[in-house]
Amino acid sequence: MRGIKHLAEHLGLSIGTVSRALNAKPDVNPETRKRVLAAASALGYVPNQSGRSLRQGATNSVGFMIEAGDPSGNSDTFFMPVFDGVQQVLSRHHLDLVVLPCSAGEDPAQYLARTVARRQVDALILSATRRQDDRIALLSKARLPFIALGRSETAGNYPWIDLDFEGVATRSVARLVAAGHRRIAVALPSKDLNLGFVYLKGYRAALEKHDIAFDPSLVLRAASSEQGGYQIGHEILSMANPPTAIILHYELLAIGLYSRLHDAGLVPGNDLSIISFRESPISRFLSPRLTCFRLSLRELGVALGEALLASMPKYAEHYPQGVVQRVWPMEMVVGESDGPAAAASDYRS
Amino acid sequence: MRGIKHLAEHLGLSIGTVSRALNAKPDVNPETRKRVLAAASALGYVPNQSGRSLRQGATNSVGFMIEAGDPSGNSDTFFMPVFDGVQQVLSRHHLDLVVLPCSAGEDPAQYLARTVARRQVDALILSATRRQDDRIALLSKARLPFIALGRSETAGNYPWIDLDFEGVATRSVARLVAAGHRRIAVALPSKDLNLGFVYLKGYRAALEKHDIAFDPSLVLRAASSEQGGYQIGHEILSMANPPTAIILHYELLAIGLYSRLHDAGLVPGNDLSIISFRESPISRFLSPRLTCFRLSLRELGVALGEALLASMPKYAEHYPQGVVQRVWPMEMVVGESDGPAAAASDYRS
Repeated sequence: MRGIKHLAEHLGLSIGTVSRALNAKPDVNPETRKRVLAAASALGYVPNQSGRSLRQGATNSVGFMIEAGDPSGNSDTFFMPVFDGVQQVLSRHHLDLVVLPCSAGEDPAQYLARTVARRQVDALILSATRRQDDRIALLSKARLPFIALGRSETAGNYPWIDLDFEGVATRSVARLVAAGHRRIAVALPSKDLNLGFVYLKGYRAALEKHDIAFDPSLVLRAASSEQGGYQIGHEILSMANPPTAIILHYELLAIGLYSRLHDAGLVPGNDLSIISFRESPISRFLSPRLTCFRLSLRELGVALGEALLASMPKYAEHYPQGVVQRVWPMEMVVGESDGPAAAASDYRS
Repeated sequence: MRGIKHLAEHLGLSIGTVSRALNAKPDVNPETRKRVLAAASALGYVPNQSGRSLRQGATNSVGFMIEAGDPSGNSDTFFMPVFDGVQQVLSRHHLDLVVLPCSAGEDPAQYLARTVARRQVDALILSATRRQDDRIALLSKARLPFIALGRSETAGNYPWIDLDFEGVATRSVARLVAAGHRRIAVALPSKDLNLGFVYLKGYRAALEKHDIAFDPSLVLRAASSEQGGYQIGHEILSMANPPTAIILHYELLAIGLYSRLHDAGLVPGNDLSIISFRESPISRFLSPRLTCFRLSLRELGVALGEALLASMPKYAEHYPQGVVQRVWPMEMVVGESDGPAAAASDYRS
């Protein structure tokens, strides 16, 4: 894989001929050109990126920024299938995905500024959006095409796709109310992630619709992790007037919460009704099975890739959808972790 | 972040002066140089990568290749802290980590060949090594510095760091034998990962040491996932002469295995003794708690980064450790998922 020299040697042709064939110059015999292209493809030949990038102003790479200490905790099982979907779209245009992991200790906006200055990528996908996100202004100013996985309150007509946090919270509360629950808690992320605000908004709207007063003591904040779920369980067990149900913005919370209830001899769905967010491979193996919401992460990745290409002048003609701003739907999966309010035992005793 | 032009405007200096200051030319006033470097640092200025890379033959990026359909399943909670450790080392030298995710459908060697041809990175970290791994010859031929996270039987004097799969299997079997177990099963990955061979080797060596005959029917292969663990549980329950204990090469298997035992009314550590591989956030919240092995993924990342730099001529003087080939130790964490063989009930009935 030494590039054009290796390719020329392999074919027994001069570098000049191979170069002219690759660049579709008219003075190359069509049969030769066909042979060169076939060999280039078979050998995985790709032009020297540094030289080409200076000439064309393109790296043929798209960056996906993630955070090593991702405060959503989503790094766990979320991103890999999304990468796969994005990559599938990019490969149609001979673009490659590179993942840019921002260290836990580094400011995401500063990290991104460095990446932009290095011109490492032609376009970017952001994740873990904050309520006010400095990275959006930075990319707009740098005129680097991007899409955000997650909304933000930062102004601007930029593309985004976000999971339906609001709708999920609303539907979860509605289901619990229909089962007779009135004291419904909500678990929120401890950091400034926009998804926490959106989820809370859906929760409050549903309470209001069902004439249930908002009780700030039922808003429980914790790290989006197993440990955070354990702490939430602990907090609920120590409350004078505990909830009979809780909705979770993140699936790993359920693992710790189940564990804390189990330690106390309590059963999810019986002593405390739980509705979780995203269905994950683990949710099927929890006992009792989690009630949660399903989506295809691969399809989400495909949609992200296509919406990003729609915002890049070079590819927009193939993706005429304009500036995509889309809430991604999720389908409820009914498990056994929630039940009628009447069943809730008084675990304060 | 428009690069040197932006920096010059910000400082009220000419681009030429800023460029000379950044390149440490002698004709620049030391005070001016100091001011330029401070501003460059504050603004996150980094030279245009494409131009610099042509001149210096360096991208200042190090790639970490992972597989979206990682057959080890390790993508889950494993990589993020490792990235963070690698990044910490690279940042000492103003290098950045980019993660290169190979799609599930793509051949890893072909994917890597494309990356190498594009000269996207100065050095590479490989993961998910196969027993015979074509990527190693490819990188050696391309003279691109690399380190493998995972051993391989492919010949060559290249650096690698690998978890102690062999030692863990040996110690797990020894612990179970000491508790009276004689029929000990082993769960192995379904694919051609080298770690499966190493783990099996440690298992067989321990059996031999304790004068227990190797029984091929106790070698259970499944996907390295929750579902794979469930299937293994299913297989054990249907065996005419089942094991009383099992050792797992991957932690997610425990979740599915616990679930299958639970469905059958059986208790891990009582009806079937289980020793798992790596301690993960989830293992603490499984009930009963898993007996498994602990390591610091961040420290592993630091070691990988330093060993890689040791193999790069430009940085080797700072890291004089030569070609690192190192088995990473793991510490046993005793839980409640294994117990005396005498306790094992006859679940065939």
